[in-house]
Amino acid sequence: MHLPDTDRTIAALATPPGGGALAIIRLSGQEAFRIAAAFTSPPQPAPGHRQVRMLDIKDGSRLIDRAVAVFFKGPASYTGQDAVEITCHGSPYITRTILNLAVKSGARLAQPGEFTLRAYMNGKLDLAQAEAVGSLITCGSSAAHRAALAQVRGEMSRRIGALKQSAVRLLAELEARLDDSYEETAPLKAAAFLRDTTALKKEILSLAAGFEAGRGIREGIRVVITGAPNSGKSSLLNSLLGYDRAIVSEQAGTTRDTLEVQLELGGFSVIFTDTAGLNSAAKGPLEREGIRRAAKAISEADIILLLKDCSTAQTPSDNLAERRAAELAAPGTVLIKILTKTDLPARTRDAGSLKTSCKTRAGLAAVCNVLVARQKKAFREGAQAPVIFARHFEALSGAAAELGKLQGLMKKKNPPLEMAAEHLRGALGALGAIVGETAPEEVLARIFSSFCVGK
Amino acid sequence: MHLPDTDRTIAALATPPGGGALAIIRLSGQEAFRIAAAFTSPPQPAPGHRQVRMLDIKDGSRLIDRAVAVFFKGPASYTGQDAVEITCHGSPYITRTILNLAVKSGARLAQPGEFTLRAYMNGKLDLAQAEAVGSLITCGSSAAHRAALAQVRGEMSRRIGALKQSAVRLLAELEARLDDSYEETAPLKAAAFLRDTTALKKEILSLAAGFEAGRGIREGIRVVITGAPNSGKSSLLNSLLGYDRAIVSEQAGTTRDTLEVQLELGGFSVIFTDTAGLNSAAKGPLEREGIRRAAKAISEADIILLLKDCSTAQTPSDNLAERRAAELAAPGTVLIKILTKTDLPARTRDAGSLKTSCKTRAGLAAVCNVLVARQKKAFREGAQAPVIFARHFEALSGAAAELGKLQGLMKKKNPPLEMAAEHLRGALGALGAIVGETAPEEVLARIFSSFCVGK
Repeated sequence: MHLPDTDRTIAALATPPGGGALAIIRLSGQEAFRIAAAFTSPPQPAPGHRQVRMLDIKDGSRLIDRAVAVFFKGPASYTGQDAVEITCHGSPYITRTILNLAVKSGARLAQPGEFTLRAYMNGKLDLAQAEAVGSLITCGSSAAHRAALAQVRGEMSRRIGALKQSAVRLLAELEARLDDSYEETAPLKAAAFLRDTTALKKEILSLAAGFEAGRGIREGIRVVITGAPNSGKSSLLNSLLGYDRAIVSEQAGTTRDTLEVQLELGGFSVIFTDTAGLNSAAKGPLEREGIRRAAKAISEADIILLLKDCSTAQTPSDNLAERRAAELAAPGTVLIKILTKTDLPARTRDAGSLKTSCKTRAGLAAVCNVLVARQKKAFREGAQAPVIFARHFEALSGAAAELGKLQGLMKKKNPPLEMAAEHLRGALGALGAIVGETAPEEVLARIFSSFCVGK
Repeated sequence: MHLPDTDRTIAALATPPGGGALAIIRLSGQEAFRIAAAFTSPPQPAPGHRQVRMLDIKDGSRLIDRAVAVFFKGPASYTGQDAVEITCHGSPYITRTILNLAVKSGARLAQPGEFTLRAYMNGKLDLAQAEAVGSLITCGSSAAHRAALAQVRGEMSRRIGALKQSAVRLLAELEARLDDSYEETAPLKAAAFLRDTTALKKEILSLAAGFEAGRGIREGIRVVITGAPNSGKSSLLNSLLGYDRAIVSEQAGTTRDTLEVQLELGGFSVIFTDTAGLNSAAKGPLEREGIRRAAKAISEADIILLLKDCSTAQTPSDNLAERRAAELAAPGTVLIKILTKTDLPARTRDAGSLKTSCKTRAGLAAVCNVLVARQKKAFREGAQAPVIFARHFEALSGAAAELGKLQGLMKKKNPPLEMAAEHLRGALGALGAIVGETAPEEVLARIFSSFCVGK
């Protein structure tokens, strides 16, 4: 993976695809003003920063739209480069045509995250901030938004900065002795140094510990609904959603594909996956494919809702569903058993199960509460600005490991100061990678390629 | 239906829903500046027209986003009122929160088309222009865009204006005689008057005649793919699309629901509907429901592609499919027979059918050409700014009918001039309704309710 060039002017649709009242086309680069001028009129000689103009968009002599253009002069712009945002009518035809005009006039289509990559390259944001910009767009809940915005505003960068400062202080103590050929400096107080190292490592580990919570907050908790065919999976999902998203019928095996629906419960994002019934007598390639996808969803779940129709006796499919859920669940996954259709006469009882009826809506609130309770707990245990990216978690773990090795060295009788310093430099490098001081090209390319185009 | 008030400040998401780099929230109304100020900082005392500011969006003390706000002073704005466009990060969470803040500060959520309704009410656009704004957003093809933009720019309004001028001239001739109590005016030259009336009626009818073409251009031609189960319907659709949009399997009855896909062929929009196979031995409620939906799609089609697997003999399902297509097709619908799977040994031959193989891609171009040829013909026969709305077609037909009655009167020995004038006023009223001079509230409410929210 290579990073794209950062000079050539890029163009992208910055608003979601599809029809709407308005859409924004974004240009950034040395030639942004010239390229915009090539397909708009009247001409705007030397536009000022944040200048707004009503312009005709033209393909040769053919009028495409009347649009509002905002000009941003670098380096005050988001990317640090000259930039133009064209707000046009939100027709896919119009936005496609304007993008084609920009390309014809010398721009190239932007790759995902390329505007923010340029902001990072031009020192407008550090890497942790830039990374959170992508997260800010996709956050689907109040908690996810709070975490992402805190990071965009530099919360994580400040915490990393403080950790780095402590590490730099420790390193300076070592280096003073290493450079001290005249032995003017007092010998290192190894016990105090070890104590400070241990404290720093603890602080780093405590920050890293917030990652599991942070991941759930950022990505939403994955809840998979499983059970035998006709155990009421789609009905439960629809009742939780309050509308008919999934196709429900009385015929078993209706849900052939997996269905994914996201909603916000109590400020947290929950992603429900409805799956095909785990039929012990599955026939045909389609049904088998549905079951294969269900198995994949179960193995990726944070919470599994295992459904059983209380109006029937235990069937081989029920046994299969239970066994498969237990087998497929990843470590740490929570399994919640639910007896459904409790409005019907019960032929199965289970004290450990939640009881629901989609007809009477009994028990639905209890299901929601169980899901939200877990989320709330996760958020309470996480920090206010928790670690939301696996990359940061890995870097923090790497820094802690270096400090662990340093601890080992410092416990020795005559600690080898040069090696000790090397571990501190390793820890500093890991911390620096989070804010992008030491991130290699491949890391940058991977981070920004996960952004949407236009950001 | 009542029109909403036009004073209170309205707020809406103006970009398509979903996550993207950027999104726009739009405010319009007397209080737009005050309401924007209520949840942004720093304060902007008396913003100028098209002033751009970078603002913090705040919910109390909690920062929601940093956003670019453009202020538009009425009456120079789109709506004619003070307006603010806030470009924020395109997160559904952020846009929802900003809308909530606007509502808390005194705005109400806009109804569909309300911004354009206000533009019309404030004389910024006439009704035909306003109507075409909605069409401009949804247009999916070059031809549809050209037709809609011409109308937004006033092409239809100018043509209606010219027709009205002719009608006013005729009416003036009648009124001069009706008001002429002193008989100072020469008697009406009935033959010349009848000739002018006939010419005007012909002009109106010729404009109205473009409607069938205009509707196809605006909405896209509806092509339904039908045939017996396993006749290759989904495969044909996928091959035409060049990618796997429909689920294809070797099992008959895979397409339970109808699938709709739109694409642009030669500048025209074509909407393909893939349908459930018409099985003569349909079992189960799901399959029957699929067939019911297929029947509905067929009855609404402009073109029906009737598929037959050439590798099998004629089956009862093939007979049923043929019979149902013929029965269900609306008058004017074009039926195109296609023999599929021609890479296999043929057991059915039909000289009148197009022959295709999705495997070898033979015959696919011919199918595309048949569809596009029909579209091109429709566009050539239509005007450059064809009538694209049923409302306009009905008003033109109404005006022509009034002129037809006028013709009848003028052929009499002593034409009753007062009655003749009444028919001319009727025709003028019908023409005036197109540009909104005489449109009742219900008509306005119906027109704007078909817009998207935020326009």
